[in-house]
Amino acid sequence: MNNNLIAVFKKIVGETYVLTSKEDLLSYGYDATPGFFHLPATVIIPENTGQVSQVMAIANKEKIPVYVRGAGTNLSAGTVPTQGGIVLLMTRMNRIIEVDTENLVAVAEPGVVVSDLNKIVEQSGLIYPPDPGTVTTATLGGTVAENSGGLRGLKYGVTKHYVMGLEVVLADGRIMNTGGKNVKDVAGYDLTKLFTGAEGTLCVITKIIVKLVPAPETRKSMMAIFNNLDNAGNSIASIIANKIIPATLEIMDNATIRTVEDYAHVGLPVNAEAVLLIEVDGIPAVVEKEAAKVLEVLKANKADEIRVAKDTADRDKIWAARRAALPALAKLRPTTFVEDATVPRSKVPDMIRAINEIAAKYKVRIGTFGHAGDGNMHPTLVCDIRDKEEMERVYKAMDEIFATAIKLGGTLSGEHGIGLGKLRYMEDQFGPVGMEVMRTIKKALDPNGILNPGKLVGEC
Amino acid sequence: MNNNLIAVFKKIVGETYVLTSKEDLLSYGYDATPGFFHLPATVIIPENTGQVSQVMAIANKEKIPVYVRGAGTNLSAGTVPTQGGIVLLMTRMNRIIEVDTENLVAVAEPGVVVSDLNKIVEQSGLIYPPDPGTVTTATLGGTVAENSGGLRGLKYGVTKHYVMGLEVVLADGRIMNTGGKNVKDVAGYDLTKLFTGAEGTLCVITKIIVKLVPAPETRKSMMAIFNNLDNAGNSIASIIANKIIPATLEIMDNATIRTVEDYAHVGLPVNAEAVLLIEVDGIPAVVEKEAAKVLEVLKANKADEIRVAKDTADRDKIWAARRAALPALAKLRPTTFVEDATVPRSKVPDMIRAINEIAAKYKVRIGTFGHAGDGNMHPTLVCDIRDKEEMERVYKAMDEIFATAIKLGGTLSGEHGIGLGKLRYMEDQFGPVGMEVMRTIKKALDPNGILNPGKLVGEC
Repeated sequence: MNNNLIAVFKKIVGETYVLTSKEDLLSYGYDATPGFFHLPATVIIPENTGQVSQVMAIANKEKIPVYVRGAGTNLSAGTVPTQGGIVLLMTRMNRIIEVDTENLVAVAEPGVVVSDLNKIVEQSGLIYPPDPGTVTTATLGGTVAENSGGLRGLKYGVTKHYVMGLEVVLADGRIMNTGGKNVKDVAGYDLTKLFTGAEGTLCVITKIIVKLVPAPETRKSMMAIFNNLDNAGNSIASIIANKIIPATLEIMDNATIRTVEDYAHVGLPVNAEAVLLIEVDGIPAVVEKEAAKVLEVLKANKADEIRVAKDTADRDKIWAARRAALPALAKLRPTTFVEDATVPRSKVPDMIRAINEIAAKYKVRIGTFGHAGDGNMHPTLVCDIRDKEEMERVYKAMDEIFATAIKLGGTLSGEHGIGLGKLRYMEDQFGPVGMEVMRTIKKALDPNGILNPGKLVGEC
Repeated sequence: MNNNLIAVFKKIVGETYVLTSKEDLLSYGYDATPGFFHLPATVIIPENTGQVSQVMAIANKEKIPVYVRGAGTNLSAGTVPTQGGIVLLMTRMNRIIEVDTENLVAVAEPGVVVSDLNKIVEQSGLIYPPDPGTVTTATLGGTVAENSGGLRGLKYGVTKHYVMGLEVVLADGRIMNTGGKNVKDVAGYDLTKLFTGAEGTLCVITKIIVKLVPAPETRKSMMAIFNNLDNAGNSIASIIANKIIPATLEIMDNATIRTVEDYAHVGLPVNAEAVLLIEVDGIPAVVEKEAAKVLEVLKANKADEIRVAKDTADRDKIWAARRAALPALAKLRPTTFVEDATVPRSKVPDMIRAINEIAAKYKVRIGTFGHAGDGNMHPTLVCDIRDKEEMERVYKAMDEIFATAIKLGGTLSGEHGIGLGKLRYMEDQFGPVGMEVMRTIKKALDPNGILNPGKLVGEC
């Protein structure tokens, strides 16, 4: 990038907020997705919407690619600046502008860390439910752009269910607002939802209005161990069929159980085919009733062992097992791909079985855990990215996992987004017409193709 | 429209499903919005998606406007064929394809009447929550296109919160699918939400996947009478601040109370400034607890009288008063405009007070009732559309009501859509950039401008 432009950007955001040295740029060339790296030409760190608007107007005129970035926890290579250009780092815009307890909304800038927002709203007895695994580092803006989910997705939904309004800067620098604080708002096209989950391909998000909900008064956690996968699957279906929507309903398969036990020694039976981890929340009377019903269902579906948390320490122990799943699997080999292929919840056993078959077929080590209640699985492929022969098998296994999800009526992404990582499967899910429509929208809103080019909808 | 084309359409959908006689066309020239009428050239009634696709391909080639229509209960002139052309009547596509109790979803065609869907899913202990006042006549497709709300919106949201996937036919006849049965699905742009509430300007909806929820086990209804509007307003804010989200939290102002009492003799005190009608629902323990808290809040906020329904008959009596609001107001004068200006819930008293001042200023009779809990008011202007002088005042009052809603951080529509009725205010809410972006999307997806032209985003 030429020095005149750099000087202009420095004038807009301040001398120290434009990075250009190779050492400075290095950390912005990748995110949490293995196998993708590209150095940006510069990193620009704006302080406010006006600065973002000025930067975008110039980038658009000069046709410079712009990659919006928060904490870089992305799992689908969505923030990797694959064509160079500008990384627009939003971490400086990290103000929580308002917590409005009358209307149950918060207004914040994109650089706010999600758990920081929760710390503030908790003081009013409220929660912001989306809770991705990276909640203590991920930024609100990143989770909105990626439409992140989390453990509570079954009962509480994903990020898009909480985004009520946005301020955004368009590709050409124009500023616009969508939505607002109104619980009911059906005027105009739902641009709030269109921009949420658009992975930075349509606009730069500069302000976010989110819905808050009352914090549950209490919760109860349980763990059920199954020597037969189908019994676990039937339990999931039966819990929902009994009209219980737990806050969390997680599964770990045998490969994950073995790995977690080996890593964390939490007392999991290494021969079990599946473990379910369940938490119901709400007011005490409901929690008691729902927990009793869940236990009944688990017994009826032949759970081989059930553990109920009696206190906070017990609860922590149960969830420590679940939290250990990813680090334990990641420790096995140098490279970890956490995928998020998702299926309708009735298909969870089919999906786990298929993943096991695929692992055997391609001799790839895959542990599967995830949000069974909402069908959002995390087949986690561990490997060594330096081993070409192994990686061929890994990518083939991945292809087959996603093809299976789509065949089962599922989706490529329950919560991690598409980015580049899953781009090659998009047409399988959306068909040529769906892809054309998405590209038509992308081209209409970003005619010069500068916003996260090549991602989500591919080149257009 | 020339006879060759009519013959082609008859070949596609069947001889009897293409209407052309003036008597037949007459009923399709208007909807439930006063002051808008235009005769279509023809009414075409397709039986399946393939037929819709064929009709659209021809209409696009010939540049014939197409107005998709269900039951015609629209309140913003959204279905009036203002530029002639084709009314595409979807009532023949009225199959409920599937009720999937494992995944808690239903799949249905757009012509299904909403209450018919509910009758079917109730058999599985489930409900489809959106419940517009027209629930026994409105079609599912119409409510999805308009993003309809209803009495339960506070707790359960509006239609868009339940649409999980769509099959649509694009302006040029191409068929595409969006979303699916996955609770978590963040792949690609959220076209499901973009098309929901697009009022037939972007595509023809031909199949709908909706989310179902467990039916509440029980409910409790209450009525509180206030001689002071602020006390009613404070009660609303305080109920929410106490983390109670009632299923329904309705308000009627003095003008509405007087009219309802005069019409239905349900024992309302005609001097009260406001009546709140509240229903909490869920499992019995929760309902008892929440009802007790609501009563406490009402008393603390100086409700002058509180009535609690002891049984179903009592409950019916309370809701009969609310249901009488619109017919009672409508009976006063020949013409009724039911508007749906919506504000953040904390602004409800300000909004009601402003509407009363506007009514006095323009000497227009306005009764206001509506969904106080979610800020969705229904200022209802009764008048005589044949009286030009009065109508001038009515339209001025309407302009000022919507301007006030926007000034209070509200929206033009909580549940009725924009159509033509509120088109003139759109730029006030969305600004020139917002309007340009919406028109850009419209033009990108419907380059010939044949789908409900001139509505929602105006001419483009």
